[in-house]
Amino acid sequence: MPENNNRTPVTVIGLGSMGAALADAFLAAGHPTTVWNRTAAKAAPLVSRGAEHPPAVEAAVAASPLVITCLTTYDDTIHALEPATGALRERALITLNSGAPAGARAMAAWATGHGARFLDGAIKNVPSAVGAPDTLLYYGGDKAVFDEFEATLRVLGGDTVHLGDEPDLAALYEMAVGGTLLPALVGFFQGAAAVQARGLEVSTMVPYTVKWLEMINSVLPIFAREIDSGDYTVPASTVGVFLAGAEHDDEFGREANIDVTWRAPMTDLLRRAVAAGHGEHSIAALVELLRTDGVAV
Amino acid sequence: MPENNNRTPVTVIGLGSMGAALADAFLAAGHPTTVWNRTAAKAAPLVSRGAEHPPAVEAAVAASPLVITCLTTYDDTIHALEPATGALRERALITLNSGAPAGARAMAAWATGHGARFLDGAIKNVPSAVGAPDTLLYYGGDKAVFDEFEATLRVLGGDTVHLGDEPDLAALYEMAVGGTLLPALVGFFQGAAAVQARGLEVSTMVPYTVKWLEMINSVLPIFAREIDSGDYTVPASTVGVFLAGAEHDDEFGREANIDVTWRAPMTDLLRRAVAAGHGEHSIAALVELLRTDGVAV
Repeated sequence: MPENNNRTPVTVIGLGSMGAALADAFLAAGHPTTVWNRTAAKAAPLVSRGAEHPPAVEAAVAASPLVITCLTTYDDTIHALEPATGALRERALITLNSGAPAGARAMAAWATGHGARFLDGAIKNVPSAVGAPDTLLYYGGDKAVFDEFEATLRVLGGDTVHLGDEPDLAALYEMAVGGTLLPALVGFFQGAAAVQARGLEVSTMVPYTVKWLEMINSVLPIFAREIDSGDYTVPASTVGVFLAGAEHDDEFGREANIDVTWRAPMTDLLRRAVAAGHGEHSIAALVELLRTDGVAV
Repeated sequence: MPENNNRTPVTVIGLGSMGAALADAFLAAGHPTTVWNRTAAKAAPLVSRGAEHPPAVEAAVAASPLVITCLTTYDDTIHALEPATGALRERALITLNSGAPAGARAMAAWATGHGARFLDGAIKNVPSAVGAPDTLLYYGGDKAVFDEFEATLRVLGGDTVHLGDEPDLAALYEMAVGGTLLPALVGFFQGAAAVQARGLEVSTMVPYTVKWLEMINSVLPIFAREIDSGDYTVPASTVGVFLAGAEHDDEFGREANIDVTWRAPMTDLLRRAVAAGHGEHSIAALVELLRTDGVAV
């Protein structure tokens, strides 16, 4: 173990493909790195590259001031750490897993109840991107922990952000941001099905789709400003125009031999927005129909 | 009219915001430009910048070897050109409007029936982007027309592509590529609603969403290769993993005070894909369920 440097010792618990990538990045950056996994065999490649691997999770937690978990859920994380609660006091604990904001809050309560200092984070990329200069990771929770370990956390990705003091912010943003993935992909697959049904290679449409998503990215700041201000009256593109287009979905589906029925609730959303008086408003006014907290109209 | 150059004379018919932008681009590039619009007042700003504006559409068609229409639908286009059929022979006619592939084929048959040479195209951007070096326009139809006028068409956008000889290819790609827009936006608005319900500014999530859509763009070539090969057995992300995530949608909706019911058909699609044996296959296998032509399984 290369302890002949002043880099912060780090413990990584949970060695799936992402956890292993995190541990590898710390090893490559010269951090004394301790790893632990329920299935010990997963630790072997990391041990061969210099990681410590104590048999008990409590020893793994005790080994480093900074402990990062990368398990599947918050429940899995608490379950794995239960035998190590005696070592958590004063440790900086950072959880990097999927889950809803409520789970992150429960996790934070559990961790701080055992004397740990807590951050919850998310990695907005694939394991192979860990350590790259533009890889994004964001964290919510104890700002003092973030400040103390920020340089170490940047080993995992150059775009490292503290969202705020609330420990569920990363989970909130994760679900808010991640909500575009499946719909965008199903939209792409629908188009791919149409192109394929015509006997053309799907690869031919990729450059155009890439440009199209870049165009979408270019208009998101405008929509965000409209939503933040609540002023939808100077639209770049109206709800009514989108509805006119959506009403041709079925015709296109029949003609292109594709199933477009998954789009029906979006067409219905557009119709309800028009019925609510948003026909000539920006398409961003849809956000008003997607809120269920009674604040929006 | 600046006819003291050798640039190709162009006629633009239909002067909505996009049509006006096209005519402006030709004027700025020094092309002798003739415009026509049913509501003549819309031509006035272009006339002040040097455009010709004959009162009859037939004279407008007769004025240039290249005639570009930018109306709302193919039916609108045929209706507008009906009085000009006597002038269409040997003209290169290019339609730039929304519509399904069947409409483009009917348009092509009408145009060639009147002796015109025909291309149908699409502008993959907003009017303010007309003329920019990376603005994409693609065309399907008579390759000889594309080759003869390619330099002139590049005035409208530097990324100018001929998709193939069939006159409905631009309409096909337009609908195939455009199918990501509404789902991606509703996904963004859903996340915006969650962030807003929490009392946070939606603008704070934009940089993360932009990176997320860039990540999606980076994986599209992989999905396209899987679909083209029909081999979904070496997945980067499986249908099963997506389904596991989607099954938390309702919980997240309740917790974040947002309506996620529009996502239900996508969850159902994932379930049907698992039932069809795609659970451990790439998420791109969804394309097999979206085809209705009986070829796919």
